Amino acid sequence: MYRAGIDLGGTNIAAGIINDKNELISYFTTPTLPARGAEAVAADMAMAVEKALEKAGLSKEDLVQVGIGAPGTCDVKGGVVYRSYSMNWTDVPICAMVGKYFGVPVKVDNDANCAALGEAKAGAGKGCENVVLITIGTGIGSGIIINGKIYSGLKGAGAEMGHMTLKMDGGECLCGRRGCFDYYAAATALIRQAKEAAAKHPESSLNSLEVIDGKAVFDAADAGDRTAAEVIDTYISYLSEGVCDVVNALAPEKVIIGGGISRQGERLLAPVREYVRTHAFDKRPEAIPGIVCATLGNEAGIVGAALL
Amino acid sequence: MYRAGIDLGGTNIAAGIINDKNELISYFTTPTLPARGAEAVAADMAMAVEKALEKAGLSKEDLVQVGIGAPGTCDVKGGVVYRSYSMNWTDVPICAMVGKYFGVPVKVDNDANCAALGEAKAGAGKGCENVVLITIGTGIGSGIIINGKIYSGLKGAGAEMGHMTLKMDGGECLCGRRGCFDYYAAATALIRQAKEAAAKHPESSLNSLEVIDGKAVFDAADAGDRTAAEVIDTYISYLSEGVCDVVNALAPEKVIIGGGISRQGERLLAPVREYVRTHAFDKRPEAIPGIVCATLGNEAGIVGAALL
Repeated sequence: MYRAGIDLGGTNIAAGIINDKNELISYFTTPTLPARGAEAVAADMAMAVEKALEKAGLSKEDLVQVGIGAPGTCDVKGGVVYRSYSMNWTDVPICAMVGKYFGVPVKVDNDANCAALGEAKAGAGKGCENVVLITIGTGIGSGIIINGKIYSGLKGAGAEMGHMTLKMDGGECLCGRRGCFDYYAAATALIRQAKEAAAKHPESSLNSLEVIDGKAVFDAADAGDRTAAEVIDTYISYLSEGVCDVVNALAPEKVIIGGGISRQGERLLAPVREYVRTHAFDKRPEAIPGIVCATLGNEAGIVGAALL
Repeated sequence: MYRAGIDLGGTNIAAGIINDKNELISYFTTPTLPARGAEAVAADMAMAVEKALEKAGLSKEDLVQVGIGAPGTCDVKGGVVYRSYSMNWTDVPICAMVGKYFGVPVKVDNDANCAALGEAKAGAGKGCENVVLITIGTGIGSGIIINGKIYSGLKGAGAEMGHMTLKMDGGECLCGRRGCFDYYAAATALIRQAKEAAAKHPESSLNSLEVIDGKAVFDAADAGDRTAAEVIDTYISYLSEGVCDVVNALAPEKVIIGGGISRQGERLLAPVREYVRTHAFDKRPEAIPGIVCATLGNEAGIVGAALL
C-alpha cells in the first residue's frame, strides 16, 4: 500500500511516495512556474508523482491516495485552494485537476498543516495525538494536530500561532497587527535584530560579514562576539515567550520546532525548555510538553500530504 | 433520558437535571464545606442530585449519566481530581466516590471545561463544532471545544488562554509569568486599572465610589466620567488583543465571552469585534469567528457537566 504526497511550492513541485511504514521511498522534483496557470501546474504535479512512482519501481495501480500540500488557504472538504498568494490562485479545484490523472482519492490541505501532520505521524511527534509544529522561516508558520488530525479552524483560518501578540503596540507585523510572535522570532526578525545591533556596535564582528543570516549570528556568538551573543539571548527570549504561549493555550504532547534555525538544536532549545518549565501555567513536570526539533526537514510536507 | 450535572465549587455544590433537549429542568444547591473531607462532600453531591431529581418528579432510575465539573485539574479517564486548590484535594477519585450512590457512569472534568461544553452544546455556541469560552472573572478562565468535545491537552494542562502573554516583560501575573492576558483583562485587572486612574485624577467620580467593581467603572464611563471612559477604552483594547490571539491561534466558529463583565453586552463586544475584523490574520469575512456573549450564565457548568 503506497501513498503519494505532493508539496506544492511557488518555486518547486516536490512529489514523493511513502510506504505503509510512512517512510519516504522515492522523490521527484520539478519547477512550478506558476505563471503557466493551474491546469499546467496540475499536469506537472501528476507527472512528478508518476516519476516518483517510476523511481520506486511502482505504477499508478499501487497507489491508494494522493495528497497535496498547497501554499495557501484550502477548502479541505471541497478539494479547493481558496487563495494562494505565491501561486496567484483563487478558488482553484486542485483535487479535481490532479484527480483526473489518477483513479484514487486526491486530498488537499495547507502546506504548513501537512508538515505538522508529517512530523506528528512520522517525525518528531511520532506516537503523539496532539502536536504543534512551529516553523521558523521568513515568517513563523504553525500547524496544529489534535487527536492525530489537522486542526485548521474556521475556513482554514486557524493555526496562525505566529500571529499571537508578544508585545502589544510593538513592531508592525506584515499581517497588520503589532507585536506578533512572528515579528520578533521569525528568522527575518533575528537578522533584523542582528543588523540593528551591529549598527550600534561598530566593534562587532557582525559588521565584517558579507551577508547576515540566522546561522551567521549564532556562529558569531559562539565565536565570542558579545553583540551577537546579546542578540541571540534576546532572540531566544522571544522564542521562549511564544512557545510558552503555545504551551499554555494547548499543552500539546510535543511542541516541535522546525525551519533553518532549528538546526541550532540544543543551543536553541535548552533555554526555551528551561523558560517553559519555570513559566508555564501548569508546572507539574508531567504536564510540560516536550520541546523538540523537527526531524523530517523538507520531507515533512510530502509525508504529511501523503497521509491526509 | 435525563442526565445530572454537578458544578462543584469551593463554596457551593450545584446539581441539576437536563432533559434530552439539553434543557436544565431542575436545580438544587447546598454548601460545599470542603474542610469536611472528600467523602462527606461526595455524599452531599449525590444528595444534591437526588434532591434535583425529586424536584423534577424523577428518580435515580431515570438517569443515564452523572457528570461533575470540578475546580481543578482532572484525570478525565481515571475519574480523579489531580489537584484542586479550592477544595484542598490531591488525587481524589471523585467519580468512584459519587458513583457508589448511582448505578450509572459518573464522569469528571474541569469546571471551566464543563462551562465551555455547556455553552457549546446548549448556549451561545449551539450548533458549532469548535468553540472557545473566555470567562472574565477574578482571573481569565478558558475552555476549548474541538469537534464538539473538550480539548484539555496534556494532563489537562491546556486551555489556559488567559496566560498567553500580551506584553512581554509586563506586569507580574499570579501564574509567575509577566504580561499575561489575565493580568490585563481579568475583572480584577479592570478594577486595578480603575483604582490607579482614580488616584491620578482626583476629579474623577470613581473617587466617590465606596466600592469599585467592574460594572461601576462602566457605569461611571457611561455617565460621562472621562477617566472611567479612558480606563474602559484601554481595558477593551487589552480584551481585543487577547481575543484576537484566540482567533489567530484557533479560529473557532465562535469565541464566547462569559463572566460578570460580559453583561455589558455590545458595549463591550462591538469594539472587540471591530478590532478582530481588522486585525485577524485571515481577514476574509467568512473566516472571522463570531464573538458573542455567553447565554447560560452559571448554568453552563451544570449543563456541560451533564453532557460530559
